[in-house]
Amino acid sequence: MITAHPIAGLPELQPGDDLAALVETALAAGDPPRTLDPTDVVVIAHKAVSKAEGRTANLNDVIPGELARQLAADHDKDPRLVQVVLDESHTLIRAVRGVLICETHHGFICANAGVDASNVPGEDTVVMLPTDPDHSARLLRHRLKELTGVAPGVVITDSFGRAWRVGQCDVAIGVAGLRPIEDWRGRPDYDGREMRATVIAVADQLAAVADLARAKDAMQPVVIVSGAGRHLLADDDGPGARVLIRDPAEDLFR
Amino acid sequence: MITAHPIAGLPELQPGDDLAALVETALAAGDPPRTLDPTDVVVIAHKAVSKAEGRTANLNDVIPGELARQLAADHDKDPRLVQVVLDESHTLIRAVRGVLICETHHGFICANAGVDASNVPGEDTVVMLPTDPDHSARLLRHRLKELTGVAPGVVITDSFGRAWRVGQCDVAIGVAGLRPIEDWRGRPDYDGREMRATVIAVADQLAAVADLARAKDAMQPVVIVSGAGRHLLADDDGPGARVLIRDPAEDLFR
Repeated sequence: MITAHPIAGLPELQPGDDLAALVETALAAGDPPRTLDPTDVVVIAHKAVSKAEGRTANLNDVIPGELARQLAADHDKDPRLVQVVLDESHTLIRAVRGVLICETHHGFICANAGVDASNVPGEDTVVMLPTDPDHSARLLRHRLKELTGVAPGVVITDSFGRAWRVGQCDVAIGVAGLRPIEDWRGRPDYDGREMRATVIAVADQLAAVADLARAKDAMQPVVIVSGAGRHLLADDDGPGARVLIRDPAEDLFR
Repeated sequence: MITAHPIAGLPELQPGDDLAALVETALAAGDPPRTLDPTDVVVIAHKAVSKAEGRTANLNDVIPGELARQLAADHDKDPRLVQVVLDESHTLIRAVRGVLICETHHGFICANAGVDASNVPGEDTVVMLPTDPDHSARLLRHRLKELTGVAPGVVITDSFGRAWRVGQCDVAIGVAGLRPIEDWRGRPDYDGREMRATVIAVADQLAAVADLARAKDAMQPVVIVSGAGRHLLADDDGPGARVLIRDPAEDLFR
């Protein structure tokens, strides 16, 4: 069985905040109070991580360049926001009808390179993705271990749109302490036949369940998911969410 | 809180089986026994539905045409399987390195038009997607209501690969009794700012959590997900999974 419950009572995050300590405090203050279990996965919306890491920009400090001004004019956007998006992008994949689909410096393909203006206090503040979300996930895991004695799985998430389907799903952009991918290729199914091409994006599915558990209009960036035990790694951090990025050479849809 | 628990004890499905009755029986025989609640979502891997609906093909009955034979030769595939894939396809979107990405007659874009040879008894039997998965979901919901007095949400799923990301996630291909999409556009976030472009594919996230709860090598096609109450519709079946299909005219990645 899988369970997912959001943590209530987290404050608005500020640069330098000890997010792991805030999570531990909020868990202890919960009703009922609880502690982390080594079979738990702590799933965190990246905005909480980004804010604690100071990965925000004030648009009043941004001077848009020529490309940003041109794209903003073509797509009815704030040229300062477009400049931040371009700064966060390795490649602009598509720019159509007001939508900028970007490949981030990490290799993620998403709208606006993950730069987001919602859920951010201050009209002109935007939040970027963490610089190295796998590193952020590892730091959070180690700090949780320091504070609680327990090293849970950690998944940092963002909401990405998808090709071909309407709506966003949360996906993993940073992972520590669990296998992001479960590879069943070559293993027999229950009928004894070889399962073909079954590679499961476990970390993305953990991100999805956390988003489902969270109220979008409440401040619940952290969700504890329990029951995903077989995906957890006890002794190391694992390869991180970067293994979820498809090799551009094998990608049919760029 | 969201919980997801797989139902044990379902038999291998046969054409004509009353899947809803089998689910009710398996729930009652569970440890502990349980009944359906109107806030439950019954998430079902499509293979169980397809088998009960007789949506299988014996490859020995298939005579591959010229395109199927050519594609099979180019991509090292069984020409009979390729013929079934073509029969299930509206459009072949990509054929590269052994991968056939198809648009199905329903409008879903996925590998092999959803035709699958794993978890099927009999070497030469393949399973197709249900002809009308939304209709299948509605029938299951109505039959569950007949049998139990309770009309839960119903989601029929398949595992789809994604552009840009490694690994499959389960998604909804048939939906009844719940809103597949939650649209937050224009609603204020917790800071009172308007949330922009936040349209959440709830049904796909329900599919993902069910897959996470399921053991891939056990026969657990049915998972009960509880706690997604605000997405549920009491009195009607809702628009179905077809609203999750992006209008081709608005799709940037074909």
